[in-house]
Amino acid sequence: MLMSLIAILTDFGERDFYVAAMKAVIKNICPSAEIIDITHQVRKWSILDAAYILSCCYDDFPKGTVFLVVVDPGVGTKRLPIAIKSRNYYWVAPDNGVAFTAAQRDGILETRIIENEKLFWRKKSFTFHGRDIFAPTAAHLACGFDFEQIGNVLKNPVLVKEHGAKILENGLVGYVVHIDDFGNVALSITDKQLSEVGIRYGDTVVVEIREKKFNIPFVQSFGKVRKESPLLLVNSCGKLEIAINQGNAAEVFSLSLGDKVKILKKG
Amino acid sequence: MLMSLIAILTDFGERDFYVAAMKAVIKNICPSAEIIDITHQVRKWSILDAAYILSCCYDDFPKGTVFLVVVDPGVGTKRLPIAIKSRNYYWVAPDNGVAFTAAQRDGILETRIIENEKLFWRKKSFTFHGRDIFAPTAAHLACGFDFEQIGNVLKNPVLVKEHGAKILENGLVGYVVHIDDFGNVALSITDKQLSEVGIRYGDTVVVEIREKKFNIPFVQSFGKVRKESPLLLVNSCGKLEIAINQGNAAEVFSLSLGDKVKILKKG
Amino acid sequence: MLMSLIAILTDFGERDFYVAAMKAVIKNICPSAEIIDITHQVRKWSILDAAYILSCCYDDFPKGTVFLVVVDPGVGTKRLPIAIKSRNYYWVAPDNGVAFTAAQRDGILETRIIENEKLFWRKKSFTFHGRDIFAPTAAHLACGFDFEQIGNVLKNPVLVKEHGAKILENGLVGYVVHIDDFGNVALSITDKQLSEVGIRYGDTVVVEIREKKFNIPFVQSFGKVRKESPLLLVNSCGKLEIAINQGNAAEVFSLSLGDKVKILKKG
Repeated sequence: MLMSLIAILTDFGERDFYVAAMKAVIKNICPSAEIIDITHQVRKWSILDAAYILSCCYDDFPKGTVFLVVVDPGVGTKRLPIAIKSRNYYWVAPDNGVAFTAAQRDGILETRIIENEKLFWRKKSFTFHGRDIFAPTAAHLACGFDFEQIGNVLKNPVLVKEHGAKILENGLVGYVVHIDDFGNVALSITDKQLSEVGIRYGDTVVVEIREKKFNIPFVQSFGKVRKESPLLLVNSCGKLEIAINQGNAAEVFSLSLGDKVKILKKG
Repeated sequence: MLMSLIAILTDFGERDFYVAAMKAVIKNICPSAEIIDITHQVRKWSILDAAYILSCCYDDFPKGTVFLVVVDPGVGTKRLPIAIKSRNYYWVAPDNGVAFTAAQRDGILETRIIENEKLFWRKKSFTFHGRDIFAPTAAHLACGFDFEQIGNVLKNPVLVKEHGAKILENGLVGYVVHIDDFGNVALSITDKQLSEVGIRYGDTVVVEIREKKFNIPFVQSFGKVRKESPLLLVNSCGKLEIAINQGNAAEVFSLSLGDKVKILKKG
Repeated sequence: MLMSLIAILTDFGERDFYVAAMKAVIKNICPSAEIIDITHQVRKWSILDAAYILSCCYDDFPKGTVFLVVVDPGVGTKRLPIAIKSRNYYWVAPDNGVAFTAAQRDGILETRIIENEKLFWRKKSFTFHGRDIFAPTAAHLACGFDFEQIGNVLKNPVLVKEHGAKILENGLVGYVVHIDDFGNVALSITDKQLSEVGIRYGDTVVVEIREKKFNIPFVQSFGKVRKESPLLLVNSCGKLEIAINQGNAAEVFSLSLGDKVKILKKG
């Protein structure tokens, strides 16, 4: 197992010293580690948003990548710091479910509590375990630290309840799980579920948002409709997405994370 | 030719998994590649904005750098994915002109359509060729893949019509080609063209914006005028720029990409 | 001394070619250098904001790191470009105090003016010394360039007057030194000064902002108060911070950089 890549996902933003401090700590402990930023602009404190982003790209990373995931509204409380070993990756995160979904999809082998004080950074704070606990643990793992020395096994890690989709007589109900930087709105509805209810490329579909109905074509990509026209597509993470060709669907349809959307067959 | 640096330019923003997925794919295919972000905040879908940014910095990069440029409003339509070999660099981009200007300035040797399926990533989508086609092609090139194996030669790549400048009796007409993060407004007027019409450092120049006229000194740098005063300068990309010392010129003069500006000699 | 890491701090933002050009120059001059972004979102032209960020994380970096700090409102004027050698690090910056505080804390050994033309990049501009002077100097230092060959010794580098704290009969007066991406408000009051006036974890403290008074508990971390409730804590940089659990304190209390805040013992 190659173990030299660390991929970082946080809600820290990029205007502070937080991400830099984590990288500095990593470079101190494991100079050979390479670092890739997933994003630091997860919606603040949103475990669900982070879990979605992680689940969309973790399997593009090389085997042995250490995912360092710090979306941590419970920092300084009793929530535990954990490390997960899955079939192809390591995951270092607070025990709040943020890394669980993706790790589980990869196949979790073992979860341990980060307890070994050898792993801790020389600075200690109550508010920045990203620097003091998570980054150094990720760095040690990237440089070959024995997973079993991290701490005791954790039997029941915290899970998050993800939004699912419900199949109706004439369509589906889903929820907004992510809004991207273009304003494209990803729903908790998969391409598979669409097929199951018989919605296919080329269909015009009724999208119901807060009891308003819109007829929108389900097509392969943005350029299949006129500029500034709405469309439905399957996004690059396998989820149904409401979009506008060269426009901002979240703004036009006033959609936010967690909002309910119905997708109905026409007729 | 050293071929291990990949420089990425997109309009993806940084809040999503998009850039990370591209980097993950690169690291999978060519672990030795080093990655530099040019920016991911190109004005959304603006081929001209991306082309300007690229033209300002490509020649600071080491020989052999692979430029991975994904500003791609036509993703999922018939627009072709292409790779360009120029005298010092490789360029991987959609065939919409976004990489053409800079590549041409370096001296294009050959343009090929990305057709070889060996180059494609294991994930396939209709909306994210950055991950599925462009990033893996860039990675393969960075690790020495034979350029001629990419696909057929493309004879007539798509060009973009860039804004130019027009010489008047008493000055110049240009267009806004970029607004930077400080609010400095770059115009499609070069330092050379300024000399040609006889405008020199120290002159006060008449700047005409939507028929309003402003007297603004043409100086070397911000600190040559008082704080919050306007100035004209030649920016670090060789273009005439309207600025305000420690202020935001785009806001003060209400200027946007593409706006027309006249630069007139005084008197 | 290992000398291969360059950490960059600017107020350039990330939408332009500026940061990329600096990195490209570095990779040209010192291909083995690794680059870490501290942040490029320092409040524009704010030497104090940059100095705070730098002072919070410089000592997390490995020995030998070269800090490349470009917050440079005086670019193109007579302000000097300088390089500082301190006990563990190098610092390359304009002579405006931006790197001085952190370097001094590490222990300054020598400050030199960047004069040696061998250090300059092949492009010359009056507005982008980050690319033309600072980045190439940092790159040369990272690859072992002799510090004494940089230029003449500078005896009296420019200092910045940092905000301090004043001890009152019943508390402290401090100033806002940084607002982070969460809206947490860091003050120029240290944990030590709090102890000196006898404020301890668990106390409720009176916070006076523009003559309005708020009772706020001083606790270890966010999760010690209810969601959306205010708290005072010692942040990960050792400074007193006004925060709101999963909220934005700067917005709620209308606080900006430099604002005065009184922290008073209750009763």
